[in-house]
Amino acid sequence: MGIRHGHTRDLLLVRGGTVVTGQASLCVDVLCGGVGEILAVGPDLEVPSGCAVVDAGGLLVLPGGVDPRTGIGADETGFARTVEALAGGTTTILDVMRPDGGDLVAAWRDWRHAARSAHTDVGLHMDLPGYDASVSRAMEELVTCHGVNSFVLSMMRGREDRDILQLAGHAAGLGALSLIEAQNAQAIACLRDELEQAGISGSEACPLYAPPPVEAEATARAIMLAGLRGAPVQVGPVSTTQSVAALAGARLCGQRVEGHVLAAHLVIDEAVYDPEGDTGHERYITIPPFRDMAHRRALWGALVSGNVGMVASGFSPGGRDGLDAGLAERMRVVWQHGVRSGVLTVEEFVAVTAEAPARAFNIYPRKGAIMPGADADLVLWDPEAEERCPPDADSLYAGIMLGGRAVQVVRGGMTVWKNGDVQPGGGYGAYVPRPAFRSTLSTHMRQASRLSLRDGNI
Amino acid sequence: MGIRHGHTRDLLLVRGGTVVTGQASLCVDVLCGGVGEILAVGPDLEVPSGCAVVDAGGLLVLPGGVDPRTGIGADETGFARTVEALAGGTTTILDVMRPDGGDLVAAWRDWRHAARSAHTDVGLHMDLPGYDASVSRAMEELVTCHGVNSFVLSMMRGREDRDILQLAGHAAGLGALSLIEAQNAQAIACLRDELEQAGISGSEACPLYAPPPVEAEATARAIMLAGLRGAPVQVGPVSTTQSVAALAGARLCGQRVEGHVLAAHLVIDEAVYDPEGDTGHERYITIPPFRDMAHRRALWGALVSGNVGMVASGFSPGGRDGLDAGLAERMRVVWQHGVRSGVLTVEEFVAVTAEAPARAFNIYPRKGAIMPGADADLVLWDPEAEERCPPDADSLYAGIMLGGRAVQVVRGGMTVWKNGDVQPGGGYGAYVPRPAFRSTLSTHMRQASRLSLRDGNI
Amino acid sequence: MGIRHGHTRDLLLVRGGTVVTGQASLCVDVLCGGVGEILAVGPDLEVPSGCAVVDAGGLLVLPGGVDPRTGIGADETGFARTVEALAGGTTTILDVMRPDGGDLVAAWRDWRHAARSAHTDVGLHMDLPGYDASVSRAMEELVTCHGVNSFVLSMMRGREDRDILQLAGHAAGLGALSLIEAQNAQAIACLRDELEQAGISGSEACPLYAPPPVEAEATARAIMLAGLRGAPVQVGPVSTTQSVAALAGARLCGQRVEGHVLAAHLVIDEAVYDPEGDTGHERYITIPPFRDMAHRRALWGALVSGNVGMVASGFSPGGRDGLDAGLAERMRVVWQHGVRSGVLTVEEFVAVTAEAPARAFNIYPRKGAIMPGADADLVLWDPEAEERCPPDADSLYAGIMLGGRAVQVVRGGMTVWKNGDVQPGGGYGAYVPRPAFRSTLSTHMRQASRLSLRDGNI
Amino acid sequence: MGIRHGHTRDLLLVRGGTVVTGQASLCVDVLCGGVGEILAVGPDLEVPSGCAVVDAGGLLVLPGGVDPRTGIGADETGFARTVEALAGGTTTILDVMRPDGGDLVAAWRDWRHAARSAHTDVGLHMDLPGYDASVSRAMEELVTCHGVNSFVLSMMRGREDRDILQLAGHAAGLGALSLIEAQNAQAIACLRDELEQAGISGSEACPLYAPPPVEAEATARAIMLAGLRGAPVQVGPVSTTQSVAALAGARLCGQRVEGHVLAAHLVIDEAVYDPEGDTGHERYITIPPFRDMAHRRALWGALVSGNVGMVASGFSPGGRDGLDAGLAERMRVVWQHGVRSGVLTVEEFVAVTAEAPARAFNIYPRKGAIMPGADADLVLWDPEAEERCPPDADSLYAGIMLGGRAVQVVRGGMTVWKNGDVQPGGGYGAYVPRPAFRSTLSTHMRQASRLSLRDGNI
Repeated sequence: MGIRHGHTRDLLLVRGGTVVTGQASLCVDVLCGGVGEILAVGPDLEVPSGCAVVDAGGLLVLPGGVDPRTGIGADETGFARTVEALAGGTTTILDVMRPDGGDLVAAWRDWRHAARSAHTDVGLHMDLPGYDASVSRAMEELVTCHGVNSFVLSMMRGREDRDILQLAGHAAGLGALSLIEAQNAQAIACLRDELEQAGISGSEACPLYAPPPVEAEATARAIMLAGLRGAPVQVGPVSTTQSVAALAGARLCGQRVEGHVLAAHLVIDEAVYDPEGDTGHERYITIPPFRDMAHRRALWGALVSGNVGMVASGFSPGGRDGLDAGLAERMRVVWQHGVRSGVLTVEEFVAVTAEAPARAFNIYPRKGAIMPGADADLVLWDPEAEERCPPDADSLYAGIMLGGRAVQVVRGGMTVWKNGDVQPGGGYGAYVPRPAFRSTLSTHMRQASRLSLRDGNI
Repeated sequence: MGIRHGHTRDLLLVRGGTVVTGQASLCVDVLCGGVGEILAVGPDLEVPSGCAVVDAGGLLVLPGGVDPRTGIGADETGFARTVEALAGGTTTILDVMRPDGGDLVAAWRDWRHAARSAHTDVGLHMDLPGYDASVSRAMEELVTCHGVNSFVLSMMRGREDRDILQLAGHAAGLGALSLIEAQNAQAIACLRDELEQAGISGSEACPLYAPPPVEAEATARAIMLAGLRGAPVQVGPVSTTQSVAALAGARLCGQRVEGHVLAAHLVIDEAVYDPEGDTGHERYITIPPFRDMAHRRALWGALVSGNVGMVASGFSPGGRDGLDAGLAERMRVVWQHGVRSGVLTVEEFVAVTAEAPARAFNIYPRKGAIMPGADADLVLWDPEAEERCPPDADSLYAGIMLGGRAVQVVRGGMTVWKNGDVQPGGGYGAYVPRPAFRSTLSTHMRQASRLSLRDGNI
Repeated sequence: MGIRHGHTRDLLLVRGGTVVTGQASLCVDVLCGGVGEILAVGPDLEVPSGCAVVDAGGLLVLPGGVDPRTGIGADETGFARTVEALAGGTTTILDVMRPDGGDLVAAWRDWRHAARSAHTDVGLHMDLPGYDASVSRAMEELVTCHGVNSFVLSMMRGREDRDILQLAGHAAGLGALSLIEAQNAQAIACLRDELEQAGISGSEACPLYAPPPVEAEATARAIMLAGLRGAPVQVGPVSTTQSVAALAGARLCGQRVEGHVLAAHLVIDEAVYDPEGDTGHERYITIPPFRDMAHRRALWGALVSGNVGMVASGFSPGGRDGLDAGLAERMRVVWQHGVRSGVLTVEEFVAVTAEAPARAFNIYPRKGAIMPGADADLVLWDPEAEERCPPDADSLYAGIMLGGRAVQVVRGGMTVWKNGDVQPGGGYGAYVPRPAFRSTLSTHMRQASRLSLRDGNI
Repeated sequence: MGIRHGHTRDLLLVRGGTVVTGQASLCVDVLCGGVGEILAVGPDLEVPSGCAVVDAGGLLVLPGGVDPRTGIGADETGFARTVEALAGGTTTILDVMRPDGGDLVAAWRDWRHAARSAHTDVGLHMDLPGYDASVSRAMEELVTCHGVNSFVLSMMRGREDRDILQLAGHAAGLGALSLIEAQNAQAIACLRDELEQAGISGSEACPLYAPPPVEAEATARAIMLAGLRGAPVQVGPVSTTQSVAALAGARLCGQRVEGHVLAAHLVIDEAVYDPEGDTGHERYITIPPFRDMAHRRALWGALVSGNVGMVASGFSPGGRDGLDAGLAERMRVVWQHGVRSGVLTVEEFVAVTAEAPARAFNIYPRKGAIMPGADADLVLWDPEAEERCPPDADSLYAGIMLGGRAVQVVRGGMTVWKNGDVQPGGGYGAYVPRPAFRSTLSTHMRQASRLSLRDGNI
């Protein structure tokens, strides 16, 4: 990661495209350089001498996608797969790390070492065990010294209500966000056991042991517990109408709560669990499971209304290894079924795939923006591309239409993806330290951070 | 208005402040010039030769406020009062014009003539009579030729459900937004008559003839009618918990509906109607009336959650002439009771007072933003200022705390307000033509407009 | 009708059945006599000398059904069709009368004259025009002198919000209930016109011009308006999830509002409007139209939860004359799809088909109950019967399963239906004067009425 | 209890009063006799020879109150206090028994032995520990052999989600109802610990560690878990707007869920916890605590709408021994603040204090009704009585208005309370075996039980 630090890049001018941010679409050019940042944005920029020029005519120029939650695993093999993210237009991922126990700071170091081979910039959400003094100290060190400003509290992995109260409260005091995976674990375990005893253990069991109310209840509960603390919180993945309603209701009362959906939940129907259906539905075993159309509509409505602000890939294959985690398809799914179908504007597309995640995790406008001083992470996006994922593909998205295409991807001012392949010389991604939120408990006023903040010697 | 067209300004550098937009707070400088736009934004900008420098140390630098709905009236006396808007940090107003009948385009011309003496930039929402062929033609001309992209449909002024269906549908087809003032007019008239017959006709009657359900019902109805058309719509002023709930519910279903609140409704309690209270409550006669704390909390929650995106002054005095319309206090109310009390972040403050109105009415990023190419409308804001409006003032806000202060206001690159007074040489504001939304009925995709678009010879 | 007055009947003992009321199912016998009332209820009653005995072994003994809203029309031909009601287990109907104008009291007299040939006992809801002094006087006379305690306010027939406020308020003052048919008439007219202009005018237009939001909005509005008056109100027919939600929400706030559904809306799907479907769907043209399964589920949930208390036949054929109005199928539909499917208990079945309508219109326990002093209206019901309405029948229920069967029907202590046919000597039904509610506006305390109250010389 | 079995009582005629049931108010007489049941109900009954006559002129005649949930404890001292219930018009109580562990059936026997000295008829709800095989067997024996058809699952006493799933499911299979005390126990414990560490441990801590969301969440969760099983359930005590909303929402979806409120929660304000207030507020320490007016209004609305069907005394003093449990005031509170204030009708009063509890626990119409065959439990109620509980009384209701008064109470056909004192010769109350619900899981059809069912040799 040190490679970016202080290393001056060649100038690069992206010209003639339509720059789209979360706020507006503008016919402007973008000049990149320095140590990998955007130097200028404006109409008809002059071409400095020695500057490479990329013609973005007919394309959209987007801020590099920020995937707010991936689950690629903690080893280098996992990080090698981040090339799929690049291919899909995502230049930053925030990965969930789940240590098996022991020293959380040591785990972070291991993770960061492994992350040296990532093709994208990276950050992580640290999954926490129950609250005790050593966890408390590790949280503080991670926030203060290592640029971690978010922690995962997983109800599926044993976090009970008292843990959430304590952990979310402590995190908020440190200026960190709690990211709660909300499911009623006891209910799911109980139902799963019974189904197994009844001989139902294939993928068709999945929607039966994790039905919508089991998620909705836990989502409401998690939000309530965070609210008791005045702690900012993100819940997700949310996949049901009622989860969305709980989230929206709390927001309407002024509570600071956000949510995320997984791209797959936006388009995959529960019919994939039909035991009479095609083979291969084992790959759809996951919690939360895929839902019916009414729930999917609610997820889109949640995005349109802003109650759920962002889309993650985040799929954690439950059934077997080697499954495509959906890194490449995240933005294409949203483009095809959101923008092309008229549900979302192009600006909203950028908001949910890049800007909102960056803001939620306090790395905006370094990430998620196209403005002078921001990281020069750009995607040249072909809005007209459209293809169907082959029905026989070994993919979550088999048979599903995908739209848009990342023609060229610039990360830190250098072209790293083009013509369907990684470009030589682009190096690896950087670690993105995320500053603590300032006094999230009391005033919700965010830190005014100088744009010049860069990955130092953390 | 022609004064800005093609007229090159001196350079002006605002240095050392914290620039706040709807997305982020950054320690950057802002260089203004050209024909009144922002030329550069960045840390530690160099001072060009001949450039005036303003030291914004210790201050916030905000995009000039955009008041999404004022009711100052159509004559020059009214526009003279826009100096109060400047004093309060607002550099653009969108005024409601209500012709008494006749040719709507002629009315627009009269309005625009009168608006030459405005101290702010101006746009207008045209209040419509019932739908007929001549209205239809006038709407089309206003949208196509005169930069009007919004129409007011006032249920209090006789628009019935069939009118809303027809007008909102036609407006949407033209790429214009309908702005619905939602109250159940028949119920209000009926209740008011009865109260008068019972001898209750002072300000204490106001909350009795326009109780919360009468607004909430009409708000839900207006949203439903717009939804039947797939027409984008804004409702407001909303002042009740249930109106907000109706709005939020429709948004959650994916409907394109926004809302606005009036600053006064955020802080003034229904106790002002107490007949046993102090004298002077006649000035509080308005529809919707002021509500109790539970409703006000809901309005703040609506702002925090984004379900209501913007705050207007918009107060239409119902009882008498000469009342302060609240132009000067709009931003100070939100700062004091929103930001200083910890309800809103500073970025959210900018969003609700400038960015969101600009986006809602399709003049972003020309207005509501601080970026190269945007209009050079800036406010140097003292975040620490705080004062109580004198309890004996002849003002809606008598006795209420106000916070923040516009130390200096730049409009179109020129300092127009400083040291508590209008600055010589700043001239008058410009008319801001607002382009139609592109295909709002079908795709909701907003127009990618070149930033160089300026007030031409419309 | 005079036939019942003072005319002593022979004794009749219904023995060996299971008596079901809205509260309980009991193995008791029922002795009828006197001037047509129930004399005793209890286990193993002795058989008085000269008493006819009916063996109800294996059958349920229900209070005669009360159809809270029929639309059979005001002439004798219409009343002749009440034989269908008897066949279906209904012994009392409350018919909607819609005078074309003129003197409401005279209209009532005409109606009552025509009703002499009814096979069931009868009452009526008088549909009101707009409020004026003569209407006000007629309402008072109908309530005070003629046993009418309910008025229909039809938004589809021109009642506007101010009418509802005035009429519902006046009715409440008289101790009468307002029965509001809630639909947004302007929206329906507007949409229907447009569809016709687009050449869509068959039954497939029906769900398009009267979509769910158009009903839900009007339902919420009607409830709100009644609430402003503190006036008790019934809304219906309700047919959508959102109408039910509006009703339930108001009830939860303590408002006195009830609702009814039509039996047909519980089981007929909107697929009947499919233009590609079978012929004959013209008979399904009605407002509100039939809805999809999600709405139907909500209607059943409304019945289970008690938020909607009763089921009417009430179908008003919109397309042509001569259509079966569903009088015969009302109870069978509810039995088959409610009780047999496990949704409702048998007691709830009695509640929604007899007791609740009787209570709602203040004729309980004369009607809707099985207790000494109540009218001897009994249905011997075969709970096991089940048949499908022939798919080629000219009936709303073509192809739909019906359950239960009225084996024998006793009205006023005399067997009037048996072996699938009207029994000779049973005569005609009586007019059921319905006393005003006492001070419905203030205390909601119902009148303690002596059971001996009978149809006098009204 | 054996004293009633087969023991024939003298005849007693209650004459001249207004008999009120959950359905109607009628001017009829009531003849009692046999082994303690009602023999006849009707207008102007003849006085059999040797029959005592009670003149109820000017009084209401109510079915004896059924208190659906008391917490008087398991020893004879506790049961001696049931005389207070009699004094308040309640003739049957359903007491919660909480064994400390061990054999549940043995605990039931001990309880029943102690209950021999009860002044009212009695039944019990058995509080369950976690699910295991011995608990399962004990549940079955209690249901099958001992007339227990309800079990308490207390989240405050350690029942977790998996317990609820298993216990509620098993109970439903046996035809028994689960009665869930829903509070988030972990949150309460966590908050209470923190408050104690902060030195806040008086009664003022009570509303802080058990705030409304902590109850509402748990209520929604309990309902959801029962819903997963299709198990009928009762939740309570409910004390918040949101708990009521959760209950109402589930009911609207057709779920079989009922609720109860405690009389004290209907009228006592959270102001009793004010540390600056009068002394003595220690007696108000309880979970759920008393709430503010908005919540209380919601509870009344829940009663009016039928979403919460019944009122219990049920107060479990948390702070000290010897506190009045409110047995005497339950009905008087509801009368004063419900009926006299115009919120409830007199029929609704009977429903919520007697009929609904009897129906909910399957002892209707033996209890809660006035009809031939029902137990002769009658209360002569003076509707005009009104008094204020002395402000210095050592009572929950200190300072609160109470209304109505039990002038004379008949239990099992014998006058047991009159002139403000227990009447000699009335003996003790009977055990009321409650039959299992039939197939509650599948059809919700209740058992048709012969009214002659009596306390045999169970």
